[in-house]
Amino acid sequence: MTYESGTDQYDLWVKRLHVKMASPSLKDNTGDADRLIRTLKRELEVENIRIPYSLLANLPHKLRELQYDCSVAVYEDANIWNIIDIFPPDGYQQSYGIALDLGSSTLVMRLVNLDKGEVIRELSFRNPQITVGTDILSRIYYATQTGGLEELHSMLLDKINDKIHELCTQLEITPHEILALCVAGNTTMTHFFLGLDPYWICREPYIPVVNSPELILCKDLGVHINEMAPVFALPNVGSYFGGDLIAGILVSGMNHEKEICLLVDVGTNAEVVLGNKDWLMGCAGAAGPALEGGVASMGMMAGPGVIDKVWIDPETGKINYHTIDDLPPVGICGSGLIDLVAHLYLSGMIDLRGKFVPDKCGSRLVEIDGIGHFVVVSAEESATNQPLTLSQPDIDSLIRSKAAMYTILTTITKTVELSLRDISKFFIAGTFGSYIDPRSAIVIGMIPDLPLDTYIPLGNTSVKGATLALISREAREECMGIRDKITYLELNVNQEFMNLFSAAKFIPHTDKTLFPSVKVNESQAIGGA
Amino acid sequence: MTYESGTDQYDLWVKRLHVKMASPSLKDNTGDADRLIRTLKRELEVENIRIPYSLLANLPHKLRELQYDCSVAVYEDANIWNIIDIFPPDGYQQSYGIALDLGSSTLVMRLVNLDKGEVIRELSFRNPQITVGTDILSRIYYATQTGGLEELHSMLLDKINDKIHELCTQLEITPHEILALCVAGNTTMTHFFLGLDPYWICREPYIPVVNSPELILCKDLGVHINEMAPVFALPNVGSYFGGDLIAGILVSGMNHEKEICLLVDVGTNAEVVLGNKDWLMGCAGAAGPALEGGVASMGMMAGPGVIDKVWIDPETGKINYHTIDDLPPVGICGSGLIDLVAHLYLSGMIDLRGKFVPDKCGSRLVEIDGIGHFVVVSAEESATNQPLTLSQPDIDSLIRSKAAMYTILTTITKTVELSLRDISKFFIAGTFGSYIDPRSAIVIGMIPDLPLDTYIPLGNTSVKGATLALISREAREECMGIRDKITYLELNVNQEFMNLFSAAKFIPHTDKTLFPSVKVNESQAIGGA
Repeated sequence: MTYESGTDQYDLWVKRLHVKMASPSLKDNTGDADRLIRTLKRELEVENIRIPYSLLANLPHKLRELQYDCSVAVYEDANIWNIIDIFPPDGYQQSYGIALDLGSSTLVMRLVNLDKGEVIRELSFRNPQITVGTDILSRIYYATQTGGLEELHSMLLDKINDKIHELCTQLEITPHEILALCVAGNTTMTHFFLGLDPYWICREPYIPVVNSPELILCKDLGVHINEMAPVFALPNVGSYFGGDLIAGILVSGMNHEKEICLLVDVGTNAEVVLGNKDWLMGCAGAAGPALEGGVASMGMMAGPGVIDKVWIDPETGKINYHTIDDLPPVGICGSGLIDLVAHLYLSGMIDLRGKFVPDKCGSRLVEIDGIGHFVVVSAEESATNQPLTLSQPDIDSLIRSKAAMYTILTTITKTVELSLRDISKFFIAGTFGSYIDPRSAIVIGMIPDLPLDTYIPLGNTSVKGATLALISREAREECMGIRDKITYLELNVNQEFMNLFSAAKFIPHTDKTLFPSVKVNESQAIGGA
Repeated sequence: MTYESGTDQYDLWVKRLHVKMASPSLKDNTGDADRLIRTLKRELEVENIRIPYSLLANLPHKLRELQYDCSVAVYEDANIWNIIDIFPPDGYQQSYGIALDLGSSTLVMRLVNLDKGEVIRELSFRNPQITVGTDILSRIYYATQTGGLEELHSMLLDKINDKIHELCTQLEITPHEILALCVAGNTTMTHFFLGLDPYWICREPYIPVVNSPELILCKDLGVHINEMAPVFALPNVGSYFGGDLIAGILVSGMNHEKEICLLVDVGTNAEVVLGNKDWLMGCAGAAGPALEGGVASMGMMAGPGVIDKVWIDPETGKINYHTIDDLPPVGICGSGLIDLVAHLYLSGMIDLRGKFVPDKCGSRLVEIDGIGHFVVVSAEESATNQPLTLSQPDIDSLIRSKAAMYTILTTITKTVELSLRDISKFFIAGTFGSYIDPRSAIVIGMIPDLPLDTYIPLGNTSVKGATLALISREAREECMGIRDKITYLELNVNQEFMNLFSAAKFIPHTDKTLFPSVKVNESQAIGGA
């Protein structure tokens, strides 16, 4: 799987090139280091080249062993090209880099061939810090305890190193051929990765240790690839606007668009960026874990047997669903939940407040511990031998989350005196976002009622952005440019916000003119099976 | 003792400055590192500032402890200002640096207050590598043995660290207040200091590992001052033209002169630079240790009781001398030896071949083991209770050395089609050089017969140049400029060189027209006492 169409189009900032030097002679007795630098200057057509002290001691032996014919790995930083390592002349195509999405739940790692611009392998794995706490706040708390930060840092690094080792073994490459690492994550995860104390991130006035980390050498960080390989961590704008979002903007290209674009990363926090080539405004607000399916009684993260799509037959009222890998159902993930609630509404089984309509639900509505539950999958069909149900509180929670999302979208556009209708491209970042059916999300009033082709799912923009920044000098520089361009909007949960929020706590909204396409066809609203 | 007239005239490249930041607030939630950098940019009026990864972890604690009011030590490298450390706000005048002359026999260390431009203390100490070998070649050989290089490197570093510790204890300063180290030495000593293998330095085609080392951090090198302090090693031009000579050129200022200048560093090697603001040519050739007094039977390095000046009373033939610290004589150093031979010649006690004239020497000429010896100090006067004598081979050796020196001077000037008479300033570098009486050196034909005010002794240019490069950004850059400007002349010991050498092996020279001022007054030539 080639990344875009090879790296010819990219100006690489990490590369390995063939360097053949003139052998030393009495007429040319330039020192070994200076000889290498002189030749590299010519090859790269640049002025400023540096060889690190750690490579000097072995340099004369290496150059003589290779008869002054070698390949040299270099990286650029502030127009200075730094030598990473010296290799035999052949195999200079074996230049690898790693792009890493530092998700708080899941990490996604890509091994990239820099020379060919190929993603060679992608793997994802659970964030090992989950054993300390599933949510970020509990990890920040853990970090305040003695040794806690070091533990969180090293459990993350150990896992990453294990996976790098795994990749290298599988693909028969040596770790010192991996020449750079590029990571994107939220601000707290980036702090954990760098071993920096996130204590002040969650405390007013919410100050990260660093917004734009310098390149760090792998040996200083403890990443087991080439020890002189640089680590680039995508910068953050603030405690609640991290490098993962910078990656999202980079991948969307909205910072080059003439028209107004919006980017949303749907998760526990709704992270939103509005703007175009001239300006960018970002904000983040708590949306609650409901959108990710994290709180519903039958909710779970996407995985085998998890319901990811639901539709209710308007004729028969039959509930159809799709499970991942077509296995018997075990639960429902966020995208399935949004579908389900949208279809329950369209079929009249819940009303605009999201309350069950007993007449329409029929026998599917049961009461457990005095709380209404809607049976989505019967015990017979379920892989768990238990019915899979959706409770009234589950729906209430989803409605609060979608209302928070819609309110944040409204607020950010209002702040710049625009309307949601002015949005020409609505990018949805994140793996989870890719599974959401925009039509369902419109029906429940989570996102505005725009033409469906306005919605563009981008997948995991974090790892994609990290890949771009790994292979393209321009992209890496663009990250800094995007960072500097963003105005961060601090969301004030004031009376106006609460009013907007209350109005959005209906399906799709109290103001139906905002969702002209959403119509409940009473004839379709059929009672339960 | 103020270095020149304070540092106001210098553009410092290492400094400590007072930095008061705006405290974080909801309206200004810039990260701690970025906040510091933002303020520093304003203070320094520069674009590019970096904070090293190693300072990040403790930064938020430190800034809060200091209430965002601190002093910050920085150094410049390729127009990037790098943070060395963060201190409390007061006492920012306590910024120190160390300049070090890496002599192969003696090291000279200066502690400099960067803020005030004062040399606070200077001390010199024996190079501990002398225990391995007094001459550089035997140390290079030792370095080829297993562990030899590491041993030579660490014995040097340990000694330097001991002396730094000594200075800090005496002056009640802490090592982390020392913010930079600047060293000048010959190419081999610089290699030993950096832990680099000098194996190829003494083998054709004589290739150093590095000519222009980058700045190195103290923590990487193992120097016990501030661990993030930069080490600047003055660059070399080749294996036989080291940073000590670059320092000499820097101190002489010959690279700014309109007229033709010559710089000589007299030692085991005669190192010579000819040129002016437009061009510089350097060469080095073996002169033999005789000029330093290292081989004469009574010769020794300068020290208490050593004869450093000699003159013979033309009326009485009495030998007068001066000893260091006015102690009873124990031996003679190079400058005394040159004086002695010059006066022996002027008084007729040796002839133009340097052979003793028995009639003139009288009872001072004795024979020991069949070799003629001239008694300079009788056993009664001597501190050793032995007569201090000068043998015929001692004189022969000195004559070979002075002839080599004169031949090198002739050769380098001839190469650029100049004559020795074109030299308007003749700089003599090195502590030893300062003691030489130019008149005596002219008499023996070691240096050309130019007006005495042409000769300008510069003292220890190595430590002086290192001091300049420590406190002045311009001087540090000038070192690189000088290095790039020098054409190195490989001395070919061919027939022409040998002819010139043979002609110079007389006192002052076979061609007396070259030394019109040197006349033996026969009436002054009186026999021994």
